[in-house]
Amino acid sequence: MTTITEPRVELIAHTTLACDGRSPAIEEHMSLDPDAGDMQQLVEFAGRACYQSFAKPNPKTARNKDYIARTLHGQKHWSIAEHASATFYITGVSRALTHELIRHRHLSYSQLSQRFVDESWANFVIPPAVEKSEAETIFDTGDGCIMQERLSGALEHWGNEAQRNYGVLVDALTAEGLPRKQAREAARAVLPNMIEARIVVTGNLRAWHEVIERRTAPDADAEFQQVAGLIRDELRKLAPEVFPAP
Amino acid sequence: MTTITEPRVELIAHTTLACDGRSPAIEEHMSLDPDAGDMQQLVEFAGRACYQSFAKPNPKTARNKDYIARTLHGQKHWSIAEHASATFYITGVSRALTHELIRHRHLSYSQLSQRFVDESWANFVIPPAVEKSEAETIFDTGDGCIMQERLSGALEHWGNEAQRNYGVLVDALTAEGLPRKQAREAARAVLPNMIEARIVVTGNLRAWHEVIERRTAPDADAEFQQVAGLIRDELRKLAPEVFPAP
Amino acid sequence: MTTITEPRVELIAHTTLACDGRSPAIEEHMSLDPDAGDMQQLVEFAGRACYQSFAKPNPKTARNKDYIARTLHGQKHWSIAEHASATFYITGVSRALTHELIRHRHLSYSQLSQRFVDESWANFVIPPAVEKSEAETIFDTGDGCIMQERLSGALEHWGNEAQRNYGVLVDALTAEGLPRKQAREAARAVLPNMIEARIVVTGNLRAWHEVIERRTAPDADAEFQQVAGLIRDELRKLAPEVFPAP
Amino acid sequence: MTTITEPRVELIAHTTLACDGRSPAIEEHMSLDPDAGDMQQLVEFAGRACYQSFAKPNPKTARNKDYIARTLHGQKHWSIAEHASATFYITGVSRALTHELIRHRHLSYSQLSQRFVDESWANFVIPPAVEKSEAETIFDTGDGCIMQERLSGALEHWGNEAQRNYGVLVDALTAEGLPRKQAREAARAVLPNMIEARIVVTGNLRAWHEVIERRTAPDADAEFQQVAGLIRDELRKLAPEVFPAP
Repeated sequence: MTTITEPRVELIAHTTLACDGRSPAIEEHMSLDPDAGDMQQLVEFAGRACYQSFAKPNPKTARNKDYIARTLHGQKHWSIAEHASATFYITGVSRALTHELIRHRHLSYSQLSQRFVDESWANFVIPPAVEKSEAETIFDTGDGCIMQERLSGALEHWGNEAQRNYGVLVDALTAEGLPRKQAREAARAVLPNMIEARIVVTGNLRAWHEVIERRTAPDADAEFQQVAGLIRDELRKLAPEVFPAP
Repeated sequence: MTTITEPRVELIAHTTLACDGRSPAIEEHMSLDPDAGDMQQLVEFAGRACYQSFAKPNPKTARNKDYIARTLHGQKHWSIAEHASATFYITGVSRALTHELIRHRHLSYSQLSQRFVDESWANFVIPPAVEKSEAETIFDTGDGCIMQERLSGALEHWGNEAQRNYGVLVDALTAEGLPRKQAREAARAVLPNMIEARIVVTGNLRAWHEVIERRTAPDADAEFQQVAGLIRDELRKLAPEVFPAP
Repeated sequence: MTTITEPRVELIAHTTLACDGRSPAIEEHMSLDPDAGDMQQLVEFAGRACYQSFAKPNPKTARNKDYIARTLHGQKHWSIAEHASATFYITGVSRALTHELIRHRHLSYSQLSQRFVDESWANFVIPPAVEKSEAETIFDTGDGCIMQERLSGALEHWGNEAQRNYGVLVDALTAEGLPRKQAREAARAVLPNMIEARIVVTGNLRAWHEVIERRTAPDADAEFQQVAGLIRDELRKLAPEVFPAP
Repeated sequence: MTTITEPRVELIAHTTLACDGRSPAIEEHMSLDPDAGDMQQLVEFAGRACYQSFAKPNPKTARNKDYIARTLHGQKHWSIAEHASATFYITGVSRALTHELIRHRHLSYSQLSQRFVDESWANFVIPPAVEKSEAETIFDTGDGCIMQERLSGALEHWGNEAQRNYGVLVDALTAEGLPRKQAREAARAVLPNMIEARIVVTGNLRAWHEVIERRTAPDADAEFQQVAGLIRDELRKLAPEVFPAP
């Protein structure tokens, strides 16, 4: 039996300033702002490199937080935000979500393969609208029983049924001599969108900003809104002025 | 009842040489090869622009077919193949296939939305390995009957069941007041990978070359091998030396 | 002696609808609008493919021009504009301009190589501000004369001098046994930004729209504003509602 | 007077594993290899995420160095190398080099602007072939003297002359009322390719690998070969198996 799972967004890696043994190499060119994190310092450095303004001549943008706010959100010079990036391991999301996510071409993806991995034990992800629903439905359990349950219970049942059918296909195809990988590749045909996907995603701050702008909007897919919100919360800790609280 | 469908690759649009009223504008710079199509002429023009060799000084590459063969396949100067592109309308393929296809970041996609469109009537795509299989399986039809059928018949049955469940969900969620789009978005959770996807795909010849190299390889997904072969066959008509027969 | 040249933007190729012998293949799915060109029809087709709305159910967007205006400029669904592209041969522009142009990563470029081609006979491009200037300057012609001329005349003189120095370098380096290509590669060190560049550029309508938005803005480089305007004028003929007159 | 400068490649930032307070978050999923650096661990993690093989079942690839060698160089699965990136501040290179560098579309760039910054004091970069050359040339110094010097000396002289002309133009145009930025933008027309460029460049390991493969090849531009070699040396310290010594 598989289980229902929830979205989880883990920060796995991110950009940090390089040290030349004693101090960050960047300090040869620009004094650091003690209140700012590495990623925003790097973005500022890249911006100042365009104008050779490492000496921070303008007091209005001498603090990193003011520089970031003005350059990114004010002047929309988002290209400098490309230098810092963050990697998340995202689990507990549906294949429907990853099919949308990977349309964002400026990020990098490594996704759990449905062709290589046995999906008999994969988890399921219930869409937010179904989770909230109070409606019930009646369905045949396949072993002669009729049940009445909330929609989320029905989804779980149908998911298990799909996995049983998946197992039937893998067994039948391998019994005919098909290599296991090719059998799984074919058998995944019956797996539903709600099956759990797991994916490592890396993006620079410009790319993440675009994902978050679009996918936290009210017309975005409900599950994606939820996940984009989790990603934004993590990024806000790393780069608070790039992803400011409203 | 939905139907089983087959992959179909229709050439919808492609690059052609522009005319300035009387003759192709390109002819002001380079004489055309009467045996070559527009797309390969354009690729040659781009290559010759790099060296100002419009006069075709080298007899070995004076014919377009020789120029293309040498520059692309010999010297691997694939960047010049980016100037010509082709658009296909691809139908009769599975969502499993489009989830792989759109990983290719250098092409452009417009895909039928599972969030907006009613999927109750969508078709299904049987994976090649299942289509070829002689194996049979026994399954409960849900209305009290037990059937024994070939795997492809079982897939069709399970697909119809998934669509019935999809309809149950859409109805229950809209009955609770959820807008239709959000109900469909949630209900697609139960739709299987084998449901038909339809997608408009545009790529330049360099990007298509990469897709075809990788996806006609024997370790590629079987359905994708089939579809990549169909795309290659169409492209070969337009640009025979870019996609030469083996 | 080289000459002063002016920017020239020639439309060389663009997307057209494919015909299956008798009629455009697209017509199997969607009736064409007799008032619209191929590129905008294709963009509409891609948009309608997402919603399976080929029957044009909404009278407000039944005409292609209304569909394009609403979908691109109203709803900002620019991704569908990626399917149609146009290729220009741009000459009479400076290397300063191409250094800025090629920062646009979504277009494709084939540029005349300064490493391969003899630049002794290349033309020069006078920046708009210098062309308009009434100021004069005094300079030594190098052969014992002192001249007073308008700035544009001085630029021409200095350009010729740079080319003479280029020739000195190529000759000296090849005399030492360096292959011609490597001698030119080194000698280009003295060539100025104003030397003419020639470049084949292909972009889809989304990418071109972005270039034009940014580079016709008043804070863009003056030469680039001029060239972006010429490109926009050509694109407006092909796709008038994508690039509407103000 | 300006000075001749040499290429310098400083590592400014790079990807590191994120910590959840006590230990790297990645360790919840995969045990770390004590002999490997953060970037290669992350690449391995992304690879294993595709197959859920975090337990390192294959002893042949249980060590990070073996996993990287086999997956990247053996199986050519370069997409997993996209998750780790490195940022360099590259100075002492020519504008000829940056015009080639920025053709690599998968990296991110922030370059010192010739439109905003006063180039009167910029340095020059002598091409390797000129530096090595023993040849001498005779030139008029502009103040009535004739000099004979090695080519590199002539380049320095011609560079200074170009900067003097640049100053003449900026002064004449601003005297006519042109804003300083627009005057510099126009005046840069006379600046030569050999003028120093400074640029912040970020790339992931897949993108850097491609740059290094192409630009350390013997047919690449001589200056670029040198700089690509310096970049590779830095990257080799961070990710020795991704950029192995020959």
